[in-house]
Amino acid sequence: MPRSISSSGLDARRHAVEESLFHTANGYLGVRASFEEGPPSGPGGPAASIRGTYINGFYDTHPIRHPELLHGFPETGERIVNLPDAQTIELYADGERLALREGEAEGFARELDMDRGLASREFAWRTASGKRFEIRITRLCSFERPSILAVEYRVACGQAASIRLVARLEGGVGNFHDPADPRVAGEAWKPLELLGARALPAREGPGGRACVAAGLRSRTRGTGFLLALRSELEGPPLSRGSSRAEASGAALELEREARAGEELVFVRRSAYADSIRCPEPEAAAAEALEAAGKLGFAALAAEQEACLGAFWEAAEARIEGDPAADEALQFSLFQLFQAAPRDGRASIPAKGLSGEGYEGHYFWDSEIYMLPFFAYTQPELARSMLLYRHATLDGARSHACEMGQARGAAFPWRTIAGRECSAYYPSGSAQYHIDADIAYAVWAYWEASLDLPFLAGAGAELLFETARTWLEIGHFGQGEFRIESVTGPDEYSCLVDNNFYTNAMAAFNLRAAARARELLAARAPAELARLEARIGLGPEEPGLWLRAAEAMYLPYDASRDITPQDDGFLRKARWDLDATPPGDFPLLLHYHHLAIIRRQVCKQADAVLAHLLLPESAAESTKRASFAYYEGITTHDSSLSYAAFSAMAARLGEPEKAYRYFSKALRLDLDDSHGNSRDGLHLANMGGSWLALALGFGGFRPEGDRITFDPVLPRAWDAISFRIRYRGSSIRLRSARRPGGGVATRLELASGPPVEVSVGGAAAKLEGVLEL
Amino acid sequence: MPRSISSSGLDARRHAVEESLFHTANGYLGVRASFEEGPPSGPGGPAASIRGTYINGFYDTHPIRHPELLHGFPETGERIVNLPDAQTIELYADGERLALREGEAEGFARELDMDRGLASREFAWRTASGKRFEIRITRLCSFERPSILAVEYRVACGQAASIRLVARLEGGVGNFHDPADPRVAGEAWKPLELLGARALPAREGPGGRACVAAGLRSRTRGTGFLLALRSELEGPPLSRGSSRAEASGAALELEREARAGEELVFVRRSAYADSIRCPEPEAAAAEALEAAGKLGFAALAAEQEACLGAFWEAAEARIEGDPAADEALQFSLFQLFQAAPRDGRASIPAKGLSGEGYEGHYFWDSEIYMLPFFAYTQPELARSMLLYRHATLDGARSHACEMGQARGAAFPWRTIAGRECSAYYPSGSAQYHIDADIAYAVWAYWEASLDLPFLAGAGAELLFETARTWLEIGHFGQGEFRIESVTGPDEYSCLVDNNFYTNAMAAFNLRAAARARELLAARAPAELARLEARIGLGPEEPGLWLRAAEAMYLPYDASRDITPQDDGFLRKARWDLDATPPGDFPLLLHYHHLAIIRRQVCKQADAVLAHLLLPESAAESTKRASFAYYEGITTHDSSLSYAAFSAMAARLGEPEKAYRYFSKALRLDLDDSHGNSRDGLHLANMGGSWLALALGFGGFRPEGDRITFDPVLPRAWDAISFRIRYRGSSIRLRSARRPGGGVATRLELASGPPVEVSVGGAAAKLEGVLEL
Repeated sequence: MPRSISSSGLDARRHAVEESLFHTANGYLGVRASFEEGPPSGPGGPAASIRGTYINGFYDTHPIRHPELLHGFPETGERIVNLPDAQTIELYADGERLALREGEAEGFARELDMDRGLASREFAWRTASGKRFEIRITRLCSFERPSILAVEYRVACGQAASIRLVARLEGGVGNFHDPADPRVAGEAWKPLELLGARALPAREGPGGRACVAAGLRSRTRGTGFLLALRSELEGPPLSRGSSRAEASGAALELEREARAGEELVFVRRSAYADSIRCPEPEAAAAEALEAAGKLGFAALAAEQEACLGAFWEAAEARIEGDPAADEALQFSLFQLFQAAPRDGRASIPAKGLSGEGYEGHYFWDSEIYMLPFFAYTQPELARSMLLYRHATLDGARSHACEMGQARGAAFPWRTIAGRECSAYYPSGSAQYHIDADIAYAVWAYWEASLDLPFLAGAGAELLFETARTWLEIGHFGQGEFRIESVTGPDEYSCLVDNNFYTNAMAAFNLRAAARARELLAARAPAELARLEARIGLGPEEPGLWLRAAEAMYLPYDASRDITPQDDGFLRKARWDLDATPPGDFPLLLHYHHLAIIRRQVCKQADAVLAHLLLPESAAESTKRASFAYYEGITTHDSSLSYAAFSAMAARLGEPEKAYRYFSKALRLDLDDSHGNSRDGLHLANMGGSWLALALGFGGFRPEGDRITFDPVLPRAWDAISFRIRYRGSSIRLRSARRPGGGVATRLELASGPPVEVSVGGAAAKLEGVLEL
Repeated sequence: MPRSISSSGLDARRHAVEESLFHTANGYLGVRASFEEGPPSGPGGPAASIRGTYINGFYDTHPIRHPELLHGFPETGERIVNLPDAQTIELYADGERLALREGEAEGFARELDMDRGLASREFAWRTASGKRFEIRITRLCSFERPSILAVEYRVACGQAASIRLVARLEGGVGNFHDPADPRVAGEAWKPLELLGARALPAREGPGGRACVAAGLRSRTRGTGFLLALRSELEGPPLSRGSSRAEASGAALELEREARAGEELVFVRRSAYADSIRCPEPEAAAAEALEAAGKLGFAALAAEQEACLGAFWEAAEARIEGDPAADEALQFSLFQLFQAAPRDGRASIPAKGLSGEGYEGHYFWDSEIYMLPFFAYTQPELARSMLLYRHATLDGARSHACEMGQARGAAFPWRTIAGRECSAYYPSGSAQYHIDADIAYAVWAYWEASLDLPFLAGAGAELLFETARTWLEIGHFGQGEFRIESVTGPDEYSCLVDNNFYTNAMAAFNLRAAARARELLAARAPAELARLEARIGLGPEEPGLWLRAAEAMYLPYDASRDITPQDDGFLRKARWDLDATPPGDFPLLLHYHHLAIIRRQVCKQADAVLAHLLLPESAAESTKRASFAYYEGITTHDSSLSYAAFSAMAARLGEPEKAYRYFSKALRLDLDDSHGNSRDGLHLANMGGSWLALALGFGGFRPEGDRITFDPVLPRAWDAISFRIRYRGSSIRLRSARRPGGGVATRLELASGPPVEVSVGGAAAKLEGVLEL
């Protein structure tokens, strides 16, 4: 079944949301799906539009001003930069300029073809003089050539006309701001200085096609990074072309007389390059553009399709019998792939590369919600995300130092290049669990890949430095290891003592660090010795890690058989959710944080998430009772929450409840149910959908040297299937409802060595196909 | 023994500190002791100077910008306004202008005469041409006439010379800022717009003296308050005078030929008036100036001396045998009097009217550290401070609402007009104890005065609305009344559960409210009924207050017999104070707040303060053990801490330890031991000195219908004495060391009806003199 999403009819009010939904990206470059000719007009005037192009991790700094500046508060922030625009293509027919209006764009339709990695739109345009043109525009951000954005622009002319295209390179851009919305920047920010723009020599394209080109260079004002954009516009033979530098960029122009019935095909190719990755971004952009220019659009699209084919093969996951859910699932996985960096210089921002929400920052969601999908389907992408964390270790060490640690690394709550950019530490830097989350991801990748060079290098350093943090901020007291004044994933409690999630994950972190050291001592002693010398690891430290992990205090309430979220949580009064008006959610936008943290109320899964990630952290009965308890006090005000609740419900054998949570998570962006998809897509929620499917419904779990499955299906579904890559093997699972009840599971070893598996509690060696 | 402080020799480095120490104020107007001729020069250039004049509670607003704005965060701040300057008087002799240089000001000396309420300085000036002048300048801010600043300027001429004075009204002023010091404003702030300045007609003063005058009007840009300044310069007969408006104010000029040996006496009188208090401030200033002008400087000084005489009689408190301590004590009491407002429109700012530190804000220190001195010596001034709180009740109700309360009032942590101005709620709005502190002060004033009209009006409304807050933020749980997520006085713990101080004071607040209602039901039923109707007090509320007070949970640790500061406090790791370098104090300036709150370490007295204020809140053994425990982990980084520790040590029968703490508190400003006295004096610490003397060493305590004393003396002192005003009676205590050991106490009823007393445990009725 083909994978795509589409919309038809032009709805100006949905324009900004569709700019996110239909955006194209390749992990390096992201381009919002703005219209080439500019925003359409609706009944109330021009549609709201957030025109944007971003490079993952390409940022500038800005001062953070605190009304009360305390010691160690961050004073410099980082923000992703909206790049010079290469989307704009103006179309003129006999001098009349195309401008879309809602209600007048005949046959307007758009599509995101996820099998081929193309976004397209089409419509008919009737000019004032009555001429009719059918226009079809197709875009791609090339996965094979990360710096390349290509746009094919087809104009089918019903009547003879003089057709002129003006493609702009707009350097006078700034980031989006909206003084009325507290969730996005309120003030104008134009971090890029245009250093120069120039027209480049025209050339003849293949088959005598005309081709004009231009380039510009910009520099970020704070960080001094260089950005090069080079762009060319190619059109049918006999087009008259020109290019020129302008005040804020450059313009490329092609004009041609079209006969009635003729379709003119133009292609715009642009290449972006940045000085974070390339010493000479201009040369890199020129080279990339030249290479892409040698291929026609069809050849670029063929490359793209091949790349997507490989992706879908590796990442296959389907829901049968529920097309809406399956559509949303494919959309989620595709967006994860679009957002995933490949160069170890970036991670996945909270909104991927689809918008400026959260300022292009990376959070713990990357490791806990998004990375597992990659670790178990395309481990090289998980590795790239972890290498990014490793590359920012020095920033995390500095942050640890600012926070009063003598050693170790404290990964910042939100960052691009490694600085803590959260100005509100109670729900920022106090979330020390991010250290454990990264360690958890390192270990997951290691377990799935057995990539020893990684473990001996970046992996061990990440594990060791994060483990050290727990010894710095926690302490042995009353015969236990305790960690006070932290904030867990649930920001509706703050600065609490012994957050269950944090402590349980810290214990995992400490054990993983000690285990890694033991492994490397046996299998990579030279690398280990070098690393230990470099970071000054004392011989006593691994023993302390294990002692702390063994002594780790995990809150437990015997009377209810649940894990309290933290020491004081259960003694607080419960927030009365039934008495809270529906308009008061999310609570954080309607109540003072202090009024929230005083009560038992959760924004998202916290202890429940710990039970999901670390099934051995509590007894089955405790997990069940805790789930019920937290279900009653969780608002799910965070988009991360539903997926975790869904997965846990499935694990507790409640597939219908799991399905209800899953449904809320799955279509969050497609339905814009949080009302902010215009600022970008919720990538962590998309990763969470995979978690809910694979870990939740599929019951997938790596366990020592074995992987287990324990599928359950809700009534709404006929079957689920997904693919897992594990230690070089590729495993395909399909679980279908048996006509008489129960679930029939088929496991197939698609490639690689045999794998020890357990399905529904039954252990087996998977060599070919297993049917259970 | 006369009360004064003095300094001799000109030390440019101490200039800004002495501007605070020698400032003159009367509770309404405060003028820093800047030099009329401008700052002196030291070896490094002009001395640092903070030239300032303030009206208590005269403020402007400014936007508070948060890098992460959460719901309910304050967006508007209030700041005291530096007023148009009336200090400047330039002196010219034969055209040469006086400019003081360190090392050249012969015989330079200054004095603050606290018996007479005058600040003066004198020095000899030798001009380039070799002429010598002896100059003596005396100032007062009139207690009788709060709008009046008067300066007597005497020039004794050794040689004949042409003497010219230019007195300026400078309207182009702004507040102090210092980009290098995080404790004061970092950016220029000029809240006053000069509306106009004009010369006024010259007049003939008494005895043919010349008199020129001018006035100006300004308006605050944010609040739109009007400020009028009118000023006149009077000089000896035959002076030639003129006055003129200038670009940023006005100038008054008098010139006269002096004979050799002649002393010329000039007087400058200025009147300030503001539209917060007077509908027509210009007329009010003119009227006040005219009335003052009818008196010579000597008559103003006589009024001042009479006023001070009454003050010292009411407030007498002495230390015998330790002149340095006694000097500092007199200084403290005088400064409290200088800062105390009389009009119910203001309280005492953290720095009094001596500087801009803490932006002229009122804190809880006013009620807990400063107000008791007034309540027990000049109750009408305590009443005025409480009326100010009552006048800002609507602001406190709004703040309660912002913080999520359905009813009650949450007094802001720092404010001028009633808005919460703290941008950092973990150590701001989370300090709910300020409600109980105000209630405690209301009750103390009531107990000391039996002022029924006050209790039936402002008092009851304050008690009821603060009591309501506890029912809003606390809850009945586990059979107890619990209050979570608050910050106590010690800001080195934050957002904790069941802070002992807060809970104990809240219980007091609840009981006082219920008791007041009961009293008023019997003695002022009509007023009570009106108040209840106005604030919608339900018949069930007082019962709930008592239930909550009875059920109030007070943390107690049986194994140590101490009161833990809060639920989690004792489980945290102790901060290693011994391993902390001396340069790392105060901790808050050298460590991230999160790193501090994670540990057992205290900035100031918290549980210890509760034990002092509420002796019945813990057993004697618990108070003793708690004192020892907290002594070991308290840094005293807050200037409030020493006084509380001193008083408590005295109560625990450790006068030598009490003396050591007392000594650290007492001379804090005189010795500039915190290094920030330039920004103003630490008024709360001064109030704390009285608390330590009277409550601590004197063992004074009102107890039901009786007052008790239980004096102890450190070896360094021969005797202490102080005066208490209680229910219309004036009681004088003197306790002296007995030659053979022990303390002899003499109690005298100086006026008023007999009083039930208890001295050192022995009860008696005080009618005349009691010797024990």
